[in-house]
Amino acid sequence: MSDDVKHISADTLRQMGHEALARVGVREDIIHPVVDGLVWTSLRGVDSHGIRLLPHYVEGVKGGRLNPDPKMVFERTAAATGTLDADHTFGHAAGVEAMKHAIELARDSGIGAVSVRNSSHCGALSYFAHAAAEQDMIGMAFTHATARVKSPGSSRAFFGNNPLCLVAPMRDEAPFCFDAATTSTTFNAVKAAAAAGKTLPPGLVADADGNETTDPNKAEQLLPIGDYKGFGLSMMVDILCAVLSGMPNGNNVSKMFGDPMSKKRELGQFYCALRIDAFRDVEEFKAEMQEMAERVRNEPAIDPEIRRVMVPGDPEKKAWAEFSELGINVPQHVMAEIRLLRGE
Amino acid sequence: MSDDVKHISADTLRQMGHEALARVGVREDIIHPVVDGLVWTSLRGVDSHGIRLLPHYVEGVKGGRLNPDPKMVFERTAAATGTLDADHTFGHAAGVEAMKHAIELARDSGIGAVSVRNSSHCGALSYFAHAAAEQDMIGMAFTHATARVKSPGSSRAFFGNNPLCLVAPMRDEAPFCFDAATTSTTFNAVKAAAAAGKTLPPGLVADADGNETTDPNKAEQLLPIGDYKGFGLSMMVDILCAVLSGMPNGNNVSKMFGDPMSKKRELGQFYCALRIDAFRDVEEFKAEMQEMAERVRNEPAIDPEIRRVMVPGDPEKKAWAEFSELGINVPQHVMAEIRLLRGE
Repeated sequence: MSDDVKHISADTLRQMGHEALARVGVREDIIHPVVDGLVWTSLRGVDSHGIRLLPHYVEGVKGGRLNPDPKMVFERTAAATGTLDADHTFGHAAGVEAMKHAIELARDSGIGAVSVRNSSHCGALSYFAHAAAEQDMIGMAFTHATARVKSPGSSRAFFGNNPLCLVAPMRDEAPFCFDAATTSTTFNAVKAAAAAGKTLPPGLVADADGNETTDPNKAEQLLPIGDYKGFGLSMMVDILCAVLSGMPNGNNVSKMFGDPMSKKRELGQFYCALRIDAFRDVEEFKAEMQEMAERVRNEPAIDPEIRRVMVPGDPEKKAWAEFSELGINVPQHVMAEIRLLRGE
Repeated sequence: MSDDVKHISADTLRQMGHEALARVGVREDIIHPVVDGLVWTSLRGVDSHGIRLLPHYVEGVKGGRLNPDPKMVFERTAAATGTLDADHTFGHAAGVEAMKHAIELARDSGIGAVSVRNSSHCGALSYFAHAAAEQDMIGMAFTHATARVKSPGSSRAFFGNNPLCLVAPMRDEAPFCFDAATTSTTFNAVKAAAAAGKTLPPGLVADADGNETTDPNKAEQLLPIGDYKGFGLSMMVDILCAVLSGMPNGNNVSKMFGDPMSKKRELGQFYCALRIDAFRDVEEFKAEMQEMAERVRNEPAIDPEIRRVMVPGDPEKKAWAEFSELGINVPQHVMAEIRLLRGE
């Protein structure tokens, strides 16, 4: 951790975030999911999608990209399905609303699926999927993103590293959470390597011409996991998020950074909740999740000092335990930006 | 293609497969999905899951692993969900039955999900998911498999390379089909390399001690795509297939090869169908699928002579066009085995 990082409590960050968004006119019921989602994500140590995004979102409201006073419209289309028009507000508010409806549909019908249109960047998918796990359901969430993944056989990117997420409750701990993009690294990690003067491991990124590179300063594209398999996963997620919702897909998806802040993102997301007791006794399910996770963690490690075998979500659970005790690590420049937003 | 491969028409293979299974007492309504699924898969050029598996399945019936005369029981548990007990018959018959119910549930409720227990090896997932696409639905299918994927940080395998599959209809051609395991190679490819005296590219396999190797003769484990991401995908699929259905998970999953042929596989699968018109006009959806696929194929290729940019499923569509015209490539030794099964 660098010297310029400060420990700030989650409550303080929530308060500061609330004030910053209220100052630019974001409605109360929209502020809550945005700030809660960002701080929740920072508590899990997923800094790329945490509180550091707040200044970017404030710019989005000021520029007109994000609607601070939306009229979201949900339409139930069948016993187990629905669509949500998010009216170009924050993806966080849209995600909370969509998953709430997916959970209600699943309560009625065993499973519920909601397609979201006219949405924006939603932060970490796991935030929404956890809401289903709290109701003894499996939560699934999908979003598409700016084209960044080099297509196999091409010199350029067509799809984003469109993440997918599945969350399922466990007996003795926070839920299992798999939340992964379709590339091995992110642009945040690339920028961090560039700032630290490090080279990258091979096989992670390509330059603007599509040539693989280990120089983070030249990295313009991300390589998909498993080559055409990660590429195919990205296309699969774009079908669920864009083609099903009628939003732009592939390299027509708007740019989070680069496009003017007046331009609406026009993103789509897809949320699903699955009632466990429509398939199996809930307590049996949770006990078996627990037992499986413990068997994974007890697998013989090559070097237990360096790395035990982990279950998806284990690093985030460790971060949560640490940061809820000590406060969240926030870089000074982010704190300075947030203070500016509050008019200090 | 090696010299010992013969072109056999799909109809002839179906007939031969039918006779071989009837001879060991498999019921008519079970034979059909097995033989049709195997030949369909061979027509798509996916030889690993095609007609070459027939002798293995016949051994399974003879040994008692596979039930030739099952009493499958479907229970609708909510408006959009159900469970299928496959009574240890062929996974192909279970998959066709489960997807039929998922489609019916989706017709009623917008989406339908079916968990299958007491199942066995089901061949290629895409066979079942295509049935949904024929009804203007998105089909999804998942299965778990024998532990073969080296866990990151460990020297051994805990999960199988549990595949997932999504199929969606297009306007002018056979459906989009993404059907992928969570490793970059398969044991069939490894065995083929060993037989041809070739070394493997790095990063694909590990030996029995968990050390990466390029020697196909030493390969005992497969490396997951994107390291911990492919591992996490495998665990996610095992949750849907095993934990939700109450079947054994992870390294408790039975072995396709190695376990006695009297031992039931006790596999689980998960099937889902999503009615497109519960979200969007079907013709608009199909037109946009078509348009997106054509944009992908028209992306600038690094070397168009070597490889155009492909959409998942394109190689299989090319194989289908060729093999339905010329017949399926069946190695002589597979033909000899099938002839033996028919008592020739």
